[in-house]
Formats: sequence, structure tokens, C-alpha cells
Amino acid sequence: MNNVPTNPMKKIVCIGGGTGTFVTLKGLKEHPYKLSAIVSMSDSGGSNKRIRDEFGLLPTSDIRQCLVALSDERGGAGLLRKLFMYRFEKGEGITGMTFGNLFMAALSDILGSQAEAIKQTSKVLRVKGTVLPVSYTDTNLKATYEDGSIATEEHFIDEPEHEGTLKITTIELEPKAAGNPDAIKAILEADMVVLGPGDLYTSVIPNLLVDGIKEALGQTKAKIVYVMNLMTKYGQTYNFTTKDHMDALEQYLGNVIQHVIINTTPLPKEALALYEAEKEQTVIDTLENTATCTVHKGDLIGTTLIEKTASDTLIRSLIRHDSTKLASMLVSIIEE
Amino acid sequence: MNNVPTNPMKKIVCIGGGTGTFVTLKGLKEHPYKLSAIVSMSDSGGSNKRIRDEFGLLPTSDIRQCLVALSDERGGAGLLRKLFMYRFEKGEGITGMTFGNLFMAALSDILGSQAEAIKQTSKVLRVKGTVLPVSYTDTNLKATYEDGSIATEEHFIDEPEHEGTLKITTIELEPKAAGNPDAIKAILEADMVVLGPGDLYTSVIPNLLVDGIKEALGQTKAKIVYVMNLMTKYGQTYNFTTKDHMDALEQYLGNVIQHVIINTTPLPKEALALYEAEKEQTVIDTLENTATCTVHKGDLIGTTLIEKTASDTLIRSLIRHDSTKLASMLVSIIEE
Repeated sequence: MNNVPTNPMKKIVCIGGGTGTFVTLKGLKEHPYKLSAIVSMSDSGGSNKRIRDEFGLLPTSDIRQCLVALSDERGGAGLLRKLFMYRFEKGEGITGMTFGNLFMAALSDILGSQAEAIKQTSKVLRVKGTVLPVSYTDTNLKATYEDGSIATEEHFIDEPEHEGTLKITTIELEPKAAGNPDAIKAILEADMVVLGPGDLYTSVIPNLLVDGIKEALGQTKAKIVYVMNLMTKYGQTYNFTTKDHMDALEQYLGNVIQHVIINTTPLPKEALALYEAEKEQTVIDTLENTATCTVHKGDLIGTTLIEKTASDTLIRSLIRHDSTKLASMLVSIIEE
Repeated sequence: MNNVPTNPMKKIVCIGGGTGTFVTLKGLKEHPYKLSAIVSMSDSGGSNKRIRDEFGLLPTSDIRQCLVALSDERGGAGLLRKLFMYRFEKGEGITGMTFGNLFMAALSDILGSQAEAIKQTSKVLRVKGTVLPVSYTDTNLKATYEDGSIATEEHFIDEPEHEGTLKITTIELEPKAAGNPDAIKAILEADMVVLGPGDLYTSVIPNLLVDGIKEALGQTKAKIVYVMNLMTKYGQTYNFTTKDHMDALEQYLGNVIQHVIINTTPLPKEALALYEAEKEQTVIDTLENTATCTVHKGDLIGTTLIEKTASDTLIRSLIRHDSTKLASMLVSIIEE
């Protein structure tokens, strides 16, 4: 916990969707702020693909992760939380499905809307905060690479058919997606907005492509913070420095980020070797303070290596930000 | 509700498993008794077949129904209750599966035992009472018919390949099943045990075939009540009178039933026509009081026709006992 006095009336909005947002929310949950998570809705892989194709619903894996991050870990809600994270490893046609996704699919059918299903699930899991899909439009990502090639749907961007060293020159949503009014309102009313950490082109930027989100981020009085990724990602941010990350964000967002948080602790050699095998490296830091943006550097990582598991939450995240350390730094920014 | 004074220390055990037990529990739940449901574990059809074959678990559909019957219908638990009854109608490999069965399969895996999964599910659903599998042995029914033919597994008995007019001469469990000690204890400590209503050879008698159950029913001080089925069942009790039902029960149980409850209100013609199409008729009543058994007759049925649905709870139950009326009669017997 942090010694900086906290203001329980302040509102924090986290934008992203994947493991990075999970870690951020889990840490901030321990502080008395009003939390919202805005989650990208263009994922199209694995369990999400089935939810979209077979159930005709929007993807729920990122929503599920945020609900779990903000949920009560004790008592009956704690048991449901475990169930929500559970992935079936038995059953023909069921193996690989996440219980939480099936839960929300059933509930969407019973209640007649996915929005209502998210609200009711939040109650059952005693979620501290609000999880908001960035959009209710059925949409997909389309990436264009520097050689002119194109990949559509998130899982083809995550695992491109070409060399992963190619840069993405533009990324867009097809069709265009309408911003969820509740998400736009949350940004406008926030005291702090946290972007990332998370896959730049498949978790963070997809939110910024939704109509109304960029505009809201331009208008809000909130402090806008970006949490820099620890590692580059082959296929998305190969060889990217911290400056390259900022430039990519600015391309879609304009010059609105006022704070950047960067980890300075070297990763354990064991972890680096595992990442190296995937052609991924520590993001090299080339950023300094500018007139409009303050760089915050510090020790932000966990000390234990996360095991790879079959669960989609952990597959690519060998080292993550430490929830407590990251939350402390965010608190110091909102309270400064 | 009933005007007879109730004694909250009294214990009632309902033995069965299907829709009939659901109706009985739902009615008794409104009275201040300590309730237990003992549930047959030899079902092998539909969702249960998959739970057994693919997940390696004991069948859970009857347990699920009892949990739902005894669960809290309000608030968060009420929503989970709805989910528990939900059957997927979309999703390759998922269509036809009951959410409650998947819930218990996931929980059994997380907690390492089905017994613990039932306990924890009871908490989450705020179940008023205890649901006890009659046995934890992986077993199946084997029916021998009067022509010498044999059917194994419950779903082949429910839908036999021969004429449904054939009488079952013996029914047994293969392999023999060990009684759940908690179920035996519940019977021994009960003030009243309610058998049925329910399919005679696939819901009620299968419990009596489990080692230790018949013996416990012979030893207990509890009043032993049988709730007579409203209708005969083609393939099991074709043309059975009330006396035929009692004789079949005595074959497996001995002469321990002290009270029989029989409905006297004629079923609506519309319902009778639907049953007639399935070669099923009202059970003709030929029972009178004996030295050891009192016959209780009265109006016990609902006034509305239950729609056939895709849910396994209702498929064959066009007219059911009325929960409130049945519970009132049971209360009058326990308090007399």
C-alpha cells in the first residue's frame, strides 16, 4: 500500500483489455478510488471466436478478465471468481472454452442483452467498479504492414503469416465502431485515465479507433497516463523503443499523454532467454521529459516468473508488472 | 400455507430424483423443516451421459434439479438459479448441455471432488437443506422384462426397444453401489421420509437398490410416505393401478410404507389426450387402508398444463402435483 493520501471521490479509468489491464486493476482495487475499465471488443481468437461465431455475441474474454480482476476474492464470490477463470480441459466441443465466457453467453440469452449480462455478472462477482465494452459494434481489426500486406481479425495480427519484423503502418476497425456512451462519459468524468500496459496494436490502440474515444480523451480534464510495456512483441512492436511506442500512440490519439510510466529494473536472465526465443526484447528506453509529458521511472516488475499455462490470461506473459508497485506509482501521479 | 402447527426441529428426507422430487421439495421448502433430498445416481441420458462419459463424473441432472428446487429465488442467488436451469441452444458441442451440469463439472475439477462441488454449489445458490447423492459408485440400471429381454442404462429403460407394455420383472444396479453414509444417516435420523412421486423404476426404486438404503428405511423411526404417481408410464408401469405401484415398491423395500398419498382430482381432458397419445393413463386407484398403511386421498394437482420444453426437467411432465397442495398434505401427516 501507499503512504500518499488518497481521495475516494476520484475516478480512474483504465483502457486496454488484456493481462496488462488485469494487473493494473488488481492493484488499483486496493485503493479507494472509483474504478472503470474500458475494454476493446475486437478480439477474435480462441474462445472469443466461438462466442462470436456460434453464439452471435461480442467477444467476452477481455471483459471476463477485467471482471475477475475487480471481483471479490473471498467467500461465495471468490469461488465464482475461480470458476470464471476456469478453462475446460474435458468434453467434446467444450475443451478450451472458458467457463466465464459460457456463463456470460448463457446470461446474455436469459437477460436478452450482453450489456445487462455484464452488469448482473458484476453483481454476482461483487465487482468493485465498472467494466465497460468500448463499443457494442460487431467489428474487427485490419492491419496494413509496411510491405503493403494486410491482416484482418485480431488473431491473425497476433500470429501474422509474414515475418514479424514488419511494421504496422495503419490499423483500423472494419466496420467503424460506435463508442459506448457509458465509456465516453467515464472518460469525460475521470480524474485519471490509464492506457496500457498491453499489446499496443491489439489491446490499447483498438480502443482509440472507436468513434468518440479519441475525442473524449482530448476533452477530458483527466490526467492521461500511459504505462509502457516491458517487452517488445514480435509481429507488432519488433525492436520498438519507448519513443516508438509513444509515436505509435500519438498517431491515433494526438499529443494528449501527460505521464509515462517506465520500468527500470532489468528482467531476470531466465525470462529474457524465454522471450528471446520468441524474438522479443526489453523495450529500450529513449524517453525524457518534454514540455507536455512527464516520464516516471522506477522498479515496477514482479520478482517471480509467471508460468505459461493453457489459460489465455497467461500464455504470453512471462514477466508482468507488479500490481502493487504499479498501483502505488499511479496513486502518486493522481495525488501529486 | 398450512394451518397445522409445524415443528422446526423435525427432519424430512425426500427420496427420488426427477421432476416429482423437485415439486415436493419446492413445496416443503416453504415450511420450517430440515430438508434433505436423496437422489438416484444411475441416470445415463442426454447431458448426464456426457457428464459421465466425457468428464468422468457421476450424473448431475437430478442433483441440479434438487438444488434448484431448494435454492433462494431472490437476488444474486436467484439469477444463478436461472442460470442453473439454463440449457444451451447454441454452440457446437455445447447445444443441449445444461449450464448447471457444466457448472458442477468445472467446480468438481477445481475442488477435486463432486461431493465438495455439491456442498459449495449449495452455498452459492443459498440452498435450504441438503442434497445427497444416494451413492458415489459409478453404476447403471439393468432391467429384466417378463419376456426375458434385458435393458441396461437408464435411457434405454426410459425408451425401450421392445413394446412398452412389457412388465419389468427385476431391476438391479450393475455394479452394486455403496450407500452414501450421509444419506443413510439422514434416513435414520428423519422424522418423515417421502418416496416419489417419480418414475417408479428409474427414479424411486434405483435409490432402494443401493446398499444400506433399504436397511435404513427398515430401521428408521420416521414415518414413511409414498406419493403415488398421477399417470402410468409406457415402458415402466403400463396399466399399473395404485396397488401395482405398491406391490412393485414392496418387492424392493419390504412392507415399510405407512402412508400413501393419492390424488383424486381428474386431470383435464386436454392433458389426458396428450398422455393418451403416449399410451399413458391416469393411475386407477384400488387402494384402501390396511393395518399398516393409511391412504390419504385429496386434490393434489395443479390447474395449469405444463408446456413441453427442450429442458429435461419438463419434457414428460404435462401435469404435475401442485407443490403447495402436496406439501400441505405432507405437513398434515408429519404433524398428525
